[in-house]
Amino acid sequence: MRVTFNRAALAEALGLVISVVPSRTPKPVLKCVRIAASGKEVRICATNLEVGLNYLVSEVEIAREGEVVVEANHLADIVRTSAEDVLLLEATETTCEIRGADSRFTIYGQDPAQYPKVPSLEKGDVDLTITLEQLQLGIQQCLFATAKESSRYAINGVLWEVKGKKLLLVATDGRRLARCRVTLDKAPKERQAEQKIIVPARTMALLEKIASHDNEIVAVKLVDNQILISCSNVVISSNLVEGNFPKYEDIIPTDYDKSVKLSTEVALSAVRRASLLTSDESKGIKLSVKADTLVFSGSSPEAGAAEVSMPIEYSGEAIDIGFNPQFLLDVLKVIREPEFELALGQADRPGLIKSGSEFLYVLMPINLG
Amino acid sequence: MRVTFNRAALAEALGLVISVVPSRTPKPVLKCVRIAASGKEVRICATNLEVGLNYLVSEVEIAREGEVVVEANHLADIVRTSAEDVLLLEATETTCEIRGADSRFTIYGQDPAQYPKVPSLEKGDVDLTITLEQLQLGIQQCLFATAKESSRYAINGVLWEVKGKKLLLVATDGRRLARCRVTLDKAPKERQAEQKIIVPARTMALLEKIASHDNEIVAVKLVDNQILISCSNVVISSNLVEGNFPKYEDIIPTDYDKSVKLSTEVALSAVRRASLLTSDESKGIKLSVKADTLVFSGSSPEAGAAEVSMPIEYSGEAIDIGFNPQFLLDVLKVIREPEFELALGQADRPGLIKSGSEFLYVLMPINLG
Repeated sequence: MRVTFNRAALAEALGLVISVVPSRTPKPVLKCVRIAASGKEVRICATNLEVGLNYLVSEVEIAREGEVVVEANHLADIVRTSAEDVLLLEATETTCEIRGADSRFTIYGQDPAQYPKVPSLEKGDVDLTITLEQLQLGIQQCLFATAKESSRYAINGVLWEVKGKKLLLVATDGRRLARCRVTLDKAPKERQAEQKIIVPARTMALLEKIASHDNEIVAVKLVDNQILISCSNVVISSNLVEGNFPKYEDIIPTDYDKSVKLSTEVALSAVRRASLLTSDESKGIKLSVKADTLVFSGSSPEAGAAEVSMPIEYSGEAIDIGFNPQFLLDVLKVIREPEFELALGQADRPGLIKSGSEFLYVLMPINLG
Repeated sequence: MRVTFNRAALAEALGLVISVVPSRTPKPVLKCVRIAASGKEVRICATNLEVGLNYLVSEVEIAREGEVVVEANHLADIVRTSAEDVLLLEATETTCEIRGADSRFTIYGQDPAQYPKVPSLEKGDVDLTITLEQLQLGIQQCLFATAKESSRYAINGVLWEVKGKKLLLVATDGRRLARCRVTLDKAPKERQAEQKIIVPARTMALLEKIASHDNEIVAVKLVDNQILISCSNVVISSNLVEGNFPKYEDIIPTDYDKSVKLSTEVALSAVRRASLLTSDESKGIKLSVKADTLVFSGSSPEAGAAEVSMPIEYSGEAIDIGFNPQFLLDVLKVIREPEFELALGQADRPGLIKSGSEFLYVLMPINLG
């Protein structure tokens, strides 16, 4: 193989590709990427057997076709650290040479036949299409709420639920739940109209990293227990999470009698400050809603007490309710509207946060004793 | 005590002061700062018993004098996270209340009598004066070369050596040595004309953090085994390091026959790339100086080999010499001139780097086998 790369384009490709390369693995070949030059195309692939990535590199010139499997991080370091506009990559079956204007690197290759196959996606036959912008907005607003290494595997992922021309993305860790509704590029074919799948959090995080140029369209195809996601020159393939996602509709409160509109920025600053003196043992903060005022307070026996108040338009029944401040900070950071609605029932019922018509967040109260 | 602070000024003060507060200490009172309001002045002090800091806070309004000792990190968090222009601090002997427009924090105080005394410095009677800019330049160019936790205490610090109107700052870890010569504001009095002291690395790092406004002057006073350093509204007091600093003049080579001028930027890029494929076991890189070319190369049995060349003006004897690439990167990052001189003797003798007339760096070669 002998290929001339635009260095910046190759660096961008490797920057994304290495994010699926595992830092530790019992299979050393997975620490590599596979580079294949054929016809006019150069593809770089990597996989950790759960998620795979197949990247069509732009601005290449192929002098000789072929393929090579080389250690991913060394290659990425070399390409990132070089300053040339152009790098020449020349590979035999066992070594790979990278040459710049003043430099020559030799890295050892592995047998390409040993590298697992990383799926691509043929044009045309897709199940769903959505703009990258809408998909990334949805990921940003729900990914943080997934469980981290729960033994209930289903909640380690994000639920994708198609409802007509809308895609609902839902995540929960059992103590809070985020649901974001984004718009599909076009309504799916009938057989996908009620589709539900669970996509691993790591796959969602990878989708969030794709650089957004223009108004790109993401094509999604489901094959057996895999999802294939294609966006411009990248195809991501991922196993789906098996298991049943909780019946989240039952958790979303619908009958609340108390509702206040809050400025996102002011509430974020208030929660941040009210939680400064809480400790690991007493980490809840109290929200006291009363006529015209909302007071956030938090304290710990060792450190002291904090109290931050903000004016509100409210004339209903007063209520004190405790929440984990981190769960409030998480959601306030991703709300894009300047205002949101906080709806409450009783002190032992979950709180409900709504922003616009497409985002909601449910969080369990904490008993402050 | 009852004092109104400009929040930004108080945040700047605490940002510097907390850098001497130890994260772990058997004496809980050292996790605090002492705030004292008297006359028209508010001083904030902290100490870890090795280094102390005494900060005169600007833009204060004292309604009632007094003093309080409170947990440093909580106070700093509160002040940094608040958004108000003005904060009111009101303290009794045991509690401290911080009030903003919409907030009230109560943190517990400790007995001010238990807090160690942190020295200040009277105006006038000083031993040395230097601009903050010159001092910080010197620190930047030698601090990185100090030993980290050596049992030879002397090399854990930076040597200050006064020679006429110059201050030499010297640091070494036994394998490389940096010497920077900076200009004093005025020649010292006779008794300081040949002064040598060793200042702990942590104290030097603290001096580097002082925000530089205008062309500030630093005043230095030596008292017993302490150094007092005053700069605008800050006084830093520090123990000196006891012990004998190595006779560094003997280490600086003077009789070298090979010398090349190198571009700092090109050499930095070349060293970075040549060291990409070295490993912990084989971490040296080789510099091959020959007619018109300098080649940097590095390799490891597992990863591969790298070679980067740069053109030089050289017609002397060829030489191959090995160096620790990190020691080269460290120095190339702090050289401010676009070019520097590399002087070499034989492959088993130290290399010498010179930048301008005021900076030099000696580094031991590595036997590449």
